[in-house]
Amino acid sequence: MLISSRLIFIYRNKTLPKHPKKVRNQEINMMNPDEVDRKILQMLEQDSRRSFNEIAQKLKLSESAIRKRVMALQDKGVIKKFTIQVDPAKLGAHSVSIVGVDAEPTKLLEVAQKLCELNEIKSVATSTGDHMIMTEIWTSDGRELTKLLSEKIGAIGGVKRICPAMILEKFKE
Amino acid sequence: MLISSRLIFIYRNKTLPKHPKKVRNQEINMMNPDEVDRKILQMLEQDSRRSFNEIAQKLKLSESAIRKRVMALQDKGVIKKFTIQVDPAKLGAHSVSIVGVDAEPTKLLEVAQKLCELNEIKSVATSTGDHMIMTEIWTSDGRELTKLLSEKIGAIGGVKRICPAMILEKFKE
Amino acid sequence: MLISSRLIFIYRNKTLPKHPKKVRNQEINMMNPDEVDRKILQMLEQDSRRSFNEIAQKLKLSESAIRKRVMALQDKGVIKKFTIQVDPAKLGAHSVSIVGVDAEPTKLLEVAQKLCELNEIKSVATSTGDHMIMTEIWTSDGRELTKLLSEKIGAIGGVKRICPAMILEKFKE
Amino acid sequence: MLISSRLIFIYRNKTLPKHPKKVRNQEINMMNPDEVDRKILQMLEQDSRRSFNEIAQKLKLSESAIRKRVMALQDKGVIKKFTIQVDPAKLGAHSVSIVGVDAEPTKLLEVAQKLCELNEIKSVATSTGDHMIMTEIWTSDGRELTKLLSEKIGAIGGVKRICPAMILEKFKE
Amino acid sequence: MLISSRLIFIYRNKTLPKHPKKVRNQEINMMNPDEVDRKILQMLEQDSRRSFNEIAQKLKLSESAIRKRVMALQDKGVIKKFTIQVDPAKLGAHSVSIVGVDAEPTKLLEVAQKLCELNEIKSVATSTGDHMIMTEIWTSDGRELTKLLSEKIGAIGGVKRICPAMILEKFKE
Amino acid sequence: MLISSRLIFIYRNKTLPKHPKKVRNQEINMMNPDEVDRKILQMLEQDSRRSFNEIAQKLKLSESAIRKRVMALQDKGVIKKFTIQVDPAKLGAHSVSIVGVDAEPTKLLEVAQKLCELNEIKSVATSTGDHMIMTEIWTSDGRELTKLLSEKIGAIGGVKRICPAMILEKFKE
Amino acid sequence: MLISSRLIFIYRNKTLPKHPKKVRNQEINMMNPDEVDRKILQMLEQDSRRSFNEIAQKLKLSESAIRKRVMALQDKGVIKKFTIQVDPAKLGAHSVSIVGVDAEPTKLLEVAQKLCELNEIKSVATSTGDHMIMTEIWTSDGRELTKLLSEKIGAIGGVKRICPAMILEKFKE
Amino acid sequence: MLISSRLIFIYRNKTLPKHPKKVRNQEINMMNPDEVDRKILQMLEQDSRRSFNEIAQKLKLSESAIRKRVMALQDKGVIKKFTIQVDPAKLGAHSVSIVGVDAEPTKLLEVAQKLCELNEIKSVATSTGDHMIMTEIWTSDGRELTKLLSEKIGAIGGVKRICPAMILEKFKE
Repeated sequence: MLISSRLIFIYRNKTLPKHPKKVRNQEINMMNPDEVDRKILQMLEQDSRRSFNEIAQKLKLSESAIRKRVMALQDKGVIKKFTIQVDPAKLGAHSVSIVGVDAEPTKLLEVAQKLCELNEIKSVATSTGDHMIMTEIWTSDGRELTKLLSEKIGAIGGVKRICPAMILEKFKE
Repeated sequence: MLISSRLIFIYRNKTLPKHPKKVRNQEINMMNPDEVDRKILQMLEQDSRRSFNEIAQKLKLSESAIRKRVMALQDKGVIKKFTIQVDPAKLGAHSVSIVGVDAEPTKLLEVAQKLCELNEIKSVATSTGDHMIMTEIWTSDGRELTKLLSEKIGAIGGVKRICPAMILEKFKE
Repeated sequence: MLISSRLIFIYRNKTLPKHPKKVRNQEINMMNPDEVDRKILQMLEQDSRRSFNEIAQKLKLSESAIRKRVMALQDKGVIKKFTIQVDPAKLGAHSVSIVGVDAEPTKLLEVAQKLCELNEIKSVATSTGDHMIMTEIWTSDGRELTKLLSEKIGAIGGVKRICPAMILEKFKE
Repeated sequence: MLISSRLIFIYRNKTLPKHPKKVRNQEINMMNPDEVDRKILQMLEQDSRRSFNEIAQKLKLSESAIRKRVMALQDKGVIKKFTIQVDPAKLGAHSVSIVGVDAEPTKLLEVAQKLCELNEIKSVATSTGDHMIMTEIWTSDGRELTKLLSEKIGAIGGVKRICPAMILEKFKE
Repeated sequence: MLISSRLIFIYRNKTLPKHPKKVRNQEINMMNPDEVDRKILQMLEQDSRRSFNEIAQKLKLSESAIRKRVMALQDKGVIKKFTIQVDPAKLGAHSVSIVGVDAEPTKLLEVAQKLCELNEIKSVATSTGDHMIMTEIWTSDGRELTKLLSEKIGAIGGVKRICPAMILEKFKE
Repeated sequence: MLISSRLIFIYRNKTLPKHPKKVRNQEINMMNPDEVDRKILQMLEQDSRRSFNEIAQKLKLSESAIRKRVMALQDKGVIKKFTIQVDPAKLGAHSVSIVGVDAEPTKLLEVAQKLCELNEIKSVATSTGDHMIMTEIWTSDGRELTKLLSEKIGAIGGVKRICPAMILEKFKE
Repeated sequence: MLISSRLIFIYRNKTLPKHPKKVRNQEINMMNPDEVDRKILQMLEQDSRRSFNEIAQKLKLSESAIRKRVMALQDKGVIKKFTIQVDPAKLGAHSVSIVGVDAEPTKLLEVAQKLCELNEIKSVATSTGDHMIMTEIWTSDGRELTKLLSEKIGAIGGVKRICPAMILEKFKE
Repeated sequence: MLISSRLIFIYRNKTLPKHPKKVRNQEINMMNPDEVDRKILQMLEQDSRRSFNEIAQKLKLSESAIRKRVMALQDKGVIKKFTIQVDPAKLGAHSVSIVGVDAEPTKLLEVAQKLCELNEIKSVATSTGDHMIMTEIWTSDGRELTKLLSEKIGAIGGVKRICPAMILEKFKE
């Protein structure tokens, strides 16, 4: 395992230009959120509709301080989205499955992107392990899943194999 | 794992004609949210801090109608939580992994519950497939993951084998 | 996948104290070795006995500048070792194998450390994939490998399963 | 993958009595390095920049005897290279992975050779086991690995499937 | 795959209280067969040639009541077929195998349907797990199975891989 | 798992010429059912409640000849059972799974027998392949399956691992 | 793969009482070799060059009786071949491997037959399990095996994947 | 596993030029059998009862020269045994299986040796790949195999898992 001319690659590919100005300032903070930020994140995670006023009172800070911090957390991308969590079964999706997708290597990224466009597919990630693409799929039942796998996912150019596993019960999410 | 415009799919595909008489009453409604509920869910999924007023204006309904429907969606469990989505890397969690856990069969549920208590474990589910318990784990790096697997997860009584796979890149979630 | 009280973990475990003063200075350089450092590394990788004088002439720099840089690369840990690469077959090791080792989860780190003590084991790493510990083992032949796996590796407390694969031919290393 | 004190093992275990008459001449010597050669290899493995003089003093031999032996070890191919060992993380390569590559059988050797040309690939070997080609790849992170697998490795004619596993922590190398 | 006394289990475990208002009408009944229906199903499962009269006497009901209920169970599809169970070995089928079939994803349903047409294939289902199509195949011996897999199953367009496992002994069916 | 017109295949392919002298007597007959027996089996497989009279008319034989043959088929064990086929979903069993069970080798037969006693388990067989025991299990949903696997199957002495796969859709049975 | 004293087992365990009337004639005899045949087979398995005279003396029978029986065993195909067993290592074949071969299903038989033509391939069989074709291959070393797999086996039309495993040590054969 | 004309391959491919000086003496000869030895081995592999006289005539050598060479091949261990090859099916062994055995690592060699003692087990070897011990087992049918695996093989101390695969058809052996 030796370096050499190969080293050249790593440095060139490194996306250094992306965050050029960030190394000096408070920015580092973002990577190491202080105690207050952490408490704010916890409170919003439990209920994202909590008012800044309520958070401020709990943390004994001013409402404007909280607002400023929440906005900073959003700006820096720590908070990606204020959103809701729904129950698939209550929406008629009785079959929740983790589906591994094998693609022709050259079409890996393209397949991952096309999978994102299907409404039944709730998450898409590339991973190490048995399949390079892992997805979470919600369908009303196994029959509909079979159809989806065959007619929609299988029809994406470059998809070679599809390996579904069913979620039996979610304990934490 | 969030719904949104994707919800549209599930309802359309659902073989509604099968149970034609059920759609009348309120309770069944929950299983087959009407068009308005679906739009509300989409809007909240995109931004859960949206005011009822804003939603009401977009859907040309009264604010109180929206409030009533959102509360009903929460009461029925369709909406499980108003929450936030965060970026693990921005919080210092550079290693996101899917870890399969094999447990002694009699301790399956117990192990699943104990895994839920670990902060680094973001989700726990039982599933079919190679491992009966699947978890998503965030750690700062591979070294910390090794330590967590050995010292915390391995120490749970009944855990027999641990099989981690790394998430390389998330495309949709 | 939501954060919350779990966030606390990540920050606490993060080994922040380790590199406290590093963020300001030239230190960053180490992460982004400049063009000169890279060329030095390449030249040493090809032949680590090259004199500083020879490197200096090629790079049109003073010998003392090269010496200073090489020492800095060593101090920072970029260069871990000046060493030699040997041919196992020429030393009588006709069987080179990649051996996956499954351990009781709580003994994972302990097993990894004990494996390091065996002379026939040339590398030990924890990994994702089929086996949490991967090793490279050199033995004179398959019979000796069988004996080693059974009598030495199997005898390490906590080792549960051993899965060898043979290296047929090395193309690059 | 370095030898050192470990070498001792191989020679002891070797069933030397089998070919008792062979040990006389120089060529056979290479296969059964004597005690002095072994000590020289160990010392160079620990620090390949050690001077012949230093080695000579430690082994109570003349500098010229050491020089002659080291040159013989190089000529016979026992020592393949004087080189350095670097730390991937210190060079910005935070993702170290073992990637199995499946190729069309007829293109096996061709694929192995083309993989050697990629800078990010640090080692390439054919092996028995799940994948006929095993590689070690260094990239800055998982996203870059995904891109490399898809755009460079997948684009090699004859590559059919790519299965990455991440190295979590190296204990010995 | 037949029901019988086992049916009892499913009804007891079913969380009936969940839909308390549904039990009133006839159609819902079908989903929750009452005690009498269950006993009828058990008796027919044990011997489908039992006369309605015999069943009526055992359950202390009129023959016409039994007839009506059996016809209702058939109409609703609870009873799919009155049939016989045969012994493959007694018919010369000494090789009973479970054969997983991998198909091109887009041809999944088509392949499943074509497999149904082969007489040696006794069951076809799509499933999660290692292979998306699972079949049970009866042949006179392994040689005939090899021929069948190669010449008939392999010849179905879209079949990519065939993985047979032998049934050694059936304990319950 | 029912025979029918498929029977035709087995007899045709059977290498009958191999044992030419054996076909004469009654006992051997059982192994090589003649054309009439085969037609009777097919008709009963399609509807086991068919009267002997109806079968007799179709085959242009006397009712007593049919009765005698059917009784002989039962006596010889060719027909194991007159039974019914039911629809699991119509009985509230929305989760149909194929579950592989690994047992301590010495307890293999014992575990297989104990599995037969569970009502939710519809079939049990030993097999080659990934798991030595294969079962078909019907439960109302995934949550109940999780509980069954953990509390009932896992509690059988000698059970070491349980690997479920879901049946998505049955095409033939 | 040789018989010998092991034969004893098979006959004892065989459920002979099942077909009591069959044992009379000569042809059936072949399927149930009597005690004398079994002893002859054992003696020939240990040393196929033993003279009929030697066997006759040991079994206290005439030489012509032994000759007749051995010829009958050959005629019936019980003895397929008088042959020798050689030591691959002594012939320079230091790499003995079990190689699974995946073929396009329609070409399964054709591939199996073509594999038989390669000299390095010592046995070819179709099987259930991970690969439908299993072969035993002798080559001088791993490098030669790599070449054989790529250039000869891979070049057979219909071969899709090749999975070698090395034999480390043979204990019985 | 028999040699024959296949031997030709190994010698041709062997990189003989590598050790040019070694071919002189008798002992080395054994490793590189000359053309005559090779022809003798082929002839004996085809029929081990061939007389030395017959071989001598075909090779145009004296009978005593052949005798001397055959004895030398035996002395050196090139010929391990003069033996016979039998047909398992003709002996009532209708189930021929390849069975992988997983053992506690420390008991690997002990388990391998105990397996050798079972008559039904025709070969035992340690190997790389899915299971460290591979065996070939002959039983009369699947039911007897199940019993053997459970009651005899499973009862060997240290055996942890047993994975059988059936041989469907042997094409070459």
